[in-house]
Amino acid sequence: MRHQRHRHRPAPDATGPSEGGLWLYGHHAVSAALANPARRLRRLLVTRTAEQELAERFSPPWRITPELVERQRLDSLLPADAIHQGAALLVEPLSPPPLEKVLDHGNGPVLVLDQVTDPRNVGAILRSAAAFGAAALVVQDRHAPQETGALARAASGALEVVPILREVNLARALEALKKAGLWVVGLEAEGPVTLAQSGLSGRRVALVLGAEGEGLRRLTRETCDELVRLPIKPAMESLNVSAAAAVALYELARE
Amino acid sequence: MRHQRHRHRPAPDATGPSEGGLWLYGHHAVSAALANPARRLRRLLVTRTAEQELAERFSPPWRITPELVERQRLDSLLPADAIHQGAALLVEPLSPPPLEKVLDHGNGPVLVLDQVTDPRNVGAILRSAAAFGAAALVVQDRHAPQETGALARAASGALEVVPILREVNLARALEALKKAGLWVVGLEAEGPVTLAQSGLSGRRVALVLGAEGEGLRRLTRETCDELVRLPIKPAMESLNVSAAAAVALYELARE
Repeated sequence: MRHQRHRHRPAPDATGPSEGGLWLYGHHAVSAALANPARRLRRLLVTRTAEQELAERFSPPWRITPELVERQRLDSLLPADAIHQGAALLVEPLSPPPLEKVLDHGNGPVLVLDQVTDPRNVGAILRSAAAFGAAALVVQDRHAPQETGALARAASGALEVVPILREVNLARALEALKKAGLWVVGLEAEGPVTLAQSGLSGRRVALVLGAEGEGLRRLTRETCDELVRLPIKPAMESLNVSAAAAVALYELARE
Repeated sequence: MRHQRHRHRPAPDATGPSEGGLWLYGHHAVSAALANPARRLRRLLVTRTAEQELAERFSPPWRITPELVERQRLDSLLPADAIHQGAALLVEPLSPPPLEKVLDHGNGPVLVLDQVTDPRNVGAILRSAAAFGAAALVVQDRHAPQETGALARAASGALEVVPILREVNLARALEALKKAGLWVVGLEAEGPVTLAQSGLSGRRVALVLGAEGEGLRRLTRETCDELVRLPIKPAMESLNVSAAAAVALYELARE
């Protein structure tokens, strides 16, 4: 299991995060998980209003019986800044499929993140990845955020759509993608050509993005088949990493 | 003045936000303001390390003498979640130029936000607007966040590059943009064509984005010359508003 567990600390509140699993919250994240047959569900807590709103998004019968609660119960159960919209679903993390299986599904690009650590950024990037048909998100296990409610909420349901593959060694993962026939493209401010100029049409691409400021690490950069940039005005140094991901994925999907 | 003032509450701490003005923080936001001759500066508090890092971004002499402080001083001065990186600059808000003057500068698109209220979203959108050469950001005064340190930090210096025009009546502002010769394009999930298909090349565009979930308000939508969409997969309902803004601005700037 990849999320944090506290097996030996009995929870004072049986519905608290300490019973293990991952609390998803917000209408999008919860209804997407209800609709995903691969997602194992443990408990669903909803306000009366939220139950109706979820039913509009995904028609019952659901695979789990909702427990009606007051909004305050969710306020105290979830992190203080969690915008839960009256719905919280305790789930088990998804088991990501092996890379080969992911690549057999369709022909979307694979997005690779090199040390992007902010859960909201990763969630937002996952959302854009799902919107533009990416096949998977590959991250380095030690330098990527865990799947949390905050990541899932920023992903707005995309956690059920795009698998997150956690790799120990990113350069080795890039080599595996190359062997599988993908063209590995790193996004860098100093790339010699723009992504649009790079003539990738017809090629299946693995797109690699680094953290803001740091960029790609040396070994990651050297493992790429090609470095490209997005064309931005000299007034700005860079784009936000999730804006850069959205634009690059859009460009790859553009006909 | 558009920021919140507390003229009648003398500050217990003379460097606190209560003395008026706007505290910018973080290397990008602070160095960009130091470099902007139109920005009026009041106080600059820096750690010794941050002073050197700012000097690398924008060479002294500066228009203001820095006051050396300990990091803890900035921690207590600024909001708890402010990532200040050892630098805080008290400035006066910029006076936005009139629309006509903005339109005379270059031929970039004008970005219009209909009720996007999250300061970090607006800051991130401003950053993409600067990166893709937008001429201005137009917002509705009553339904837009104030210029704050959080907005400025997400904008990463773009507050000094792209003027924010605060309008009382958004539909009237759109009419003024039309009169000035701009083609007003609203971004909507149900737009009949994609932005790329809409044949806008050669036209100067005002691009209108609504809040997530809500979309454009009826009057805003009816005032647009044309509604367009971004092509996303059916698995996702929508993009994050700042991802949508980045992609749309990229498409408009794309050659």
